[in-house]
Amino acid sequence: MEETFVPFRGIKNDLKGRLLCYKQDWTGGFSAGIRILAPTTYIFFASAIPVISFGEQLERNTDGSLTAVQTLASTALCGIIHSLVGGQPLLILGVAEPTVLMYTFMYNFAKDRKDLGHKLFLAWTGWVCVWTALLLFLLAVLGACSIINRFTRVAGELFGLLIAMLFMQQAIRGIVEEFGIPQRENPEQTALQPSWRFGNGMFALVLSFGLLLTALRSRKARSWRYGTGWLRGFIADYGVPLMVLVWTAVSYIPVNDVPRGIPRRLFSPNPWSPGAYSNWTVIKEMVTVPPLYIVGAFIPATMIAVLYYFDHSVASQLAQQKEFNLKKPPSYHYDLLLLGFLVILCGLIGIPPSNGVIPQSPMHTKSLATLKHQLLHNKLVSTARKSISKNSSLSQLYRSMQEAYNEMQTPLVYQLPSTLGLKELKESTIQLASSTGYIDAPVDETIFDVDKEVDELLPVEVKEQRFSNLLQSLMVSGCIAAMPFLKKIPTSVLWGYFAFMAIESLPGNQFWERILLLFTAPSRRYKVLEEYHATFVETVPFKTIATFTLFQTVYLLVCFGLTWIPIAGVLFPLLIMLLVPVRQYLLPKFFKGAHLQDLDAAEYEETRSIAYNMTFEDRERQATATQIDDLEILDEMMTRSRGEIRRTQSPKVSSTTPSSAGDIKASYSPRVLQNAYSPRNNQLRGMAEKGLELKQTPSPGPSTLGQSSRGSS
Amino acid sequence: MEETFVPFRGIKNDLKGRLLCYKQDWTGGFSAGIRILAPTTYIFFASAIPVISFGEQLERNTDGSLTAVQTLASTALCGIIHSLVGGQPLLILGVAEPTVLMYTFMYNFAKDRKDLGHKLFLAWTGWVCVWTALLLFLLAVLGACSIINRFTRVAGELFGLLIAMLFMQQAIRGIVEEFGIPQRENPEQTALQPSWRFGNGMFALVLSFGLLLTALRSRKARSWRYGTGWLRGFIADYGVPLMVLVWTAVSYIPVNDVPRGIPRRLFSPNPWSPGAYSNWTVIKEMVTVPPLYIVGAFIPATMIAVLYYFDHSVASQLAQQKEFNLKKPPSYHYDLLLLGFLVILCGLIGIPPSNGVIPQSPMHTKSLATLKHQLLHNKLVSTARKSISKNSSLSQLYRSMQEAYNEMQTPLVYQLPSTLGLKELKESTIQLASSTGYIDAPVDETIFDVDKEVDELLPVEVKEQRFSNLLQSLMVSGCIAAMPFLKKIPTSVLWGYFAFMAIESLPGNQFWERILLLFTAPSRRYKVLEEYHATFVETVPFKTIATFTLFQTVYLLVCFGLTWIPIAGVLFPLLIMLLVPVRQYLLPKFFKGAHLQDLDAAEYEETRSIAYNMTFEDRERQATATQIDDLEILDEMMTRSRGEIRRTQSPKVSSTTPSSAGDIKASYSPRVLQNAYSPRNNQLRGMAEKGLELKQTPSPGPSTLGQSSRGSS
Repeated sequence: MEETFVPFRGIKNDLKGRLLCYKQDWTGGFSAGIRILAPTTYIFFASAIPVISFGEQLERNTDGSLTAVQTLASTALCGIIHSLVGGQPLLILGVAEPTVLMYTFMYNFAKDRKDLGHKLFLAWTGWVCVWTALLLFLLAVLGACSIINRFTRVAGELFGLLIAMLFMQQAIRGIVEEFGIPQRENPEQTALQPSWRFGNGMFALVLSFGLLLTALRSRKARSWRYGTGWLRGFIADYGVPLMVLVWTAVSYIPVNDVPRGIPRRLFSPNPWSPGAYSNWTVIKEMVTVPPLYIVGAFIPATMIAVLYYFDHSVASQLAQQKEFNLKKPPSYHYDLLLLGFLVILCGLIGIPPSNGVIPQSPMHTKSLATLKHQLLHNKLVSTARKSISKNSSLSQLYRSMQEAYNEMQTPLVYQLPSTLGLKELKESTIQLASSTGYIDAPVDETIFDVDKEVDELLPVEVKEQRFSNLLQSLMVSGCIAAMPFLKKIPTSVLWGYFAFMAIESLPGNQFWERILLLFTAPSRRYKVLEEYHATFVETVPFKTIATFTLFQTVYLLVCFGLTWIPIAGVLFPLLIMLLVPVRQYLLPKFFKGAHLQDLDAAEYEETRSIAYNMTFEDRERQATATQIDDLEILDEMMTRSRGEIRRTQSPKVSSTTPSSAGDIKASYSPRVLQNAYSPRNNQLRGMAEKGLELKQTPSPGPSTLGQSSRGSS
Repeated sequence: MEETFVPFRGIKNDLKGRLLCYKQDWTGGFSAGIRILAPTTYIFFASAIPVISFGEQLERNTDGSLTAVQTLASTALCGIIHSLVGGQPLLILGVAEPTVLMYTFMYNFAKDRKDLGHKLFLAWTGWVCVWTALLLFLLAVLGACSIINRFTRVAGELFGLLIAMLFMQQAIRGIVEEFGIPQRENPEQTALQPSWRFGNGMFALVLSFGLLLTALRSRKARSWRYGTGWLRGFIADYGVPLMVLVWTAVSYIPVNDVPRGIPRRLFSPNPWSPGAYSNWTVIKEMVTVPPLYIVGAFIPATMIAVLYYFDHSVASQLAQQKEFNLKKPPSYHYDLLLLGFLVILCGLIGIPPSNGVIPQSPMHTKSLATLKHQLLHNKLVSTARKSISKNSSLSQLYRSMQEAYNEMQTPLVYQLPSTLGLKELKESTIQLASSTGYIDAPVDETIFDVDKEVDELLPVEVKEQRFSNLLQSLMVSGCIAAMPFLKKIPTSVLWGYFAFMAIESLPGNQFWERILLLFTAPSRRYKVLEEYHATFVETVPFKTIATFTLFQTVYLLVCFGLTWIPIAGVLFPLLIMLLVPVRQYLLPKFFKGAHLQDLDAAEYEETRSIAYNMTFEDRERQATATQIDDLEILDEMMTRSRGEIRRTQSPKVSSTTPSSAGDIKASYSPRVLQNAYSPRNNQLRGMAEKGLELKQTPSPGPSTLGQSSRGSS
């Protein structure tokens, strides 16, 4: 994306790009059929559960001015509008923790002013929203998002980890509170006697850890050894919502032995309860706000604008990382403009605004990559089977598969031709087959294991469409009506879910992985090298990695500490934005350019960049070497690599023909890998590095399908 | 062992064999130094905790006639005597669940007879013990243990799984009871109010699952990636007792918020409490038992004798399985004779007798194998380092290591010379080294990674000695004095520990693994082949495996069902002994001999036996292919293989020289393995089997150190 500050140019480019694929955004979504429900429900839960809990938090903090009904309404409304007319439909909108913090601060300010008070609080926030929206318009029009590429990995990952910490903090705080007396309740009731509170707290521990452990397990279901493939896939796709149901059911087991109120469950008024709809007409009261406060609303508005500008753009960026191989263009400026409209809309009807959320947005993209993989897999497998039943040779087989693959590709105007798609693997396999005389003989499934072969062939692709986002937003709006059912979920299950989301967001975060690396015993570092790993593990000295990570950790802790300070807390996005100049001007003075490039690739420092693309060969190696098949491969790619593709160095064990069995040789022995870390053996180290270099494919050039062919403006 | 029923011959042979190594049993133990504490504490906890809990159970069932003081006293006394003058010091003695069942039954019988009653119960059991002992003498003298080789895997593993089920049942029952009102307590006290009972139950869930999960984790600490090697080793060695301490400490966290009695803790009188020592003088009352009951005592005595004969022998057998490569002879007959004396002794002082226990006995051998490995490792590493510092060549290095290894070997009269020890690996490594010109050059640690190399070299050996058994028995006796401290352990931690022991005993049990195989999706069965696995997985058709396993499962469930029937319950050992003739005469009619041999190798069917020995090469392959080092290899061997050595088919990836890097070829591709299961591809299947045959080494012959060189009489 070019860095241009010519007014409106960014918005125009975004619109141009997205309009070209708008129709396909819908047709593509519908064509996925019933399978679209897997990513939809996954994201729906990830989106709705925190929003409900934030609503509960807001209700306590604003004396009931805002409740879960309002947060859900905002999430649903903004989500629906964004999925219909927004730029990047991968972006998930919702009421986020910073918004809650902001609104709490504003309520504390307003309630003590006699000419504002509880009564005019929402009207005043309406004005804050108006100002915020104006600032967002300004930023969008002036092309502020074109500096998005300056938000490097170091800032994005720090923000991601901060959000994970906030989620985990909420989980821990929530469980601790289960032992205490909640503010709004009558402390005289049976369920709040010390004995029952103790029981409630212990029950909460059981439910939350139960949910956390089973949800984490269920996400790994694809690699289970037991049960049919269908069941494993179902559990991996729907396991988390399923576990929420299961543990809610478990919470009803002791229902006859405990008084009402144990375990504690979600608290929210129903949308038809009296008082729950006073906010919708807040626009009438906005004119009664004293002019001084209308002007003063500009101050919180600037903070919210900075927050939203950063949060929205980074969420969008994390949902569109390079390794997802997206085909459709980004839309940062236009989305920021639309966010401005959404903020005004929310302000005028007295609900807190929504913005792009982390980690839900990248979760959305990941789940759509899984979906696309399933669709491609099914299509190619059926093509291959048909071809085999016609007694095709291996080359005919590949030709028909190539055709089927091309059919599945979105025909976009700005897209590079992708006919090179399956070629590379095809060639290598054909070479292998021809050397063993199989090339012209009719293939059967003993030679060509269709399921496996197809999986190894498929690149990471994402089912980019608007349907899943629209559907999950509609489901969130359904939540408002289904409030009586939602209120059956125990709050402790919710805390477990918060912990689950925090932990789910960690793998693939290089900052997190570097922290782990610091704690890894030196003698075990070779294990990191054996798995998928980032470039820096090999190219940057350990000491430099440690220094860089320590700097980032201290920065993270300062940001985290800032969120604890009552009023200054909302300024933490500023601190993260400060990382941009720090990264650009300060860090290069302390770290070598090459090291910095590997630790935190920035597009504006393209001097020594070698992008590592996962070629078919790499992927195939991964698939066969670690013996994971089907979607496990993708799961692995999706969760372990974010933003950069790592290479495995396990020995290549691939044979499509039986003839190679029995002949064993070694590639990288563990010793060589281990010694790569031992400074006393430079000879080996050099070799290892040379070996690695052979695997690098230069970034530009259409040699692999994984190559980014995204139209960028 | 020859099957001889000549009176006294078995005992004589046992004594002859064990006397030869008696002195070494002690010197070997002392020479291990402080490290002996790791297996000792591990077994001490595994031994003491169930015994305390059985004591609590007995106290309830016998109205306080017997308590934890008596069960601990019996375990300590019998343990000390057995470790001093017993035959096989690997065998752990203790009061076991069947004994508790038997005593409960006898108490229920005695308390209702007016001429016996509560008062003469212990005196009567004294007579039962006398009869039992006489029967055991008879069995020992007549050589009944020489049919021990008819107790094949099918019986031993079924018994092992039954014990695991009983332990798990106790764990579940214990946790459920935490929600209820314990019999002996006053139901009016605060801690037994419904609200506190609920809290107590939930707390129990937290504590027991906490202990179970952390204990299971800590056993795997050696393969952790974080922390220093010392810390990882410490946690793996002492993690389980440590976790008991940790969770006991956790149970005190809410101490100020809960009434006394939450969580419930171990209940036992102190040994100095009044009434706790009435049993010791029971011999005086034995003469007052009516003659009819003295004669009638013969009936329960026969059952106990059968039980002890089976239980003691199988525990001893499981502690001396083939893959442990024991160097010292077994002692079944003499140990049974000694057990007779112990039973009389216990009977006369009014405590329940101890016998050989599962799973503690095999756990003991395993932990001693770990110890021996550590000792050998340290010795060889220091030798190698010394040698390297003298600028030795690779061949000199191996020579000095071979000498050091031989020094560590127990010089036993009946032992085959083991100078062939390290030869095989040495040769292969030297060959490799000479081909790359390293053979005569001075080695340094970059070429010869001492730690790793030594680990790959070491065979499974067990530190066979008497010291750990004596020490753990002394620690159990210390428990009696330390009762006030033991009573701080929450009962829920105990239930977690029961579950831990049940789960720990599963891996390596082929019966269990076959049950898992039945549930493994057909498409995932190839994964079993990639890991260490038993022979039958490859050689026996799946249908036959399934039928055999189903038969065994039904048999297990019948045995388990029998333990639920109040009086007939104690007969379950008879049912397991019935498996011996069933296996010998009935099963061969339904299963092919070759299949039966692979599923359940019996020594009396040696017709087609090909023993699979793990050669150095295999072990090295395992070590390098799966990238586990140090004691992890041993952990793997110990826990995953019991009674039979499996082979891995992961490609051999070994290179001691850098020259082979970069050259990759495949051995068994996953496809080939997978197809080995697919009936439609006999060609591949044949290939796979042929390939496997190449790896088999014929059973007789001294070619490998792993070869059993045990003196058998």
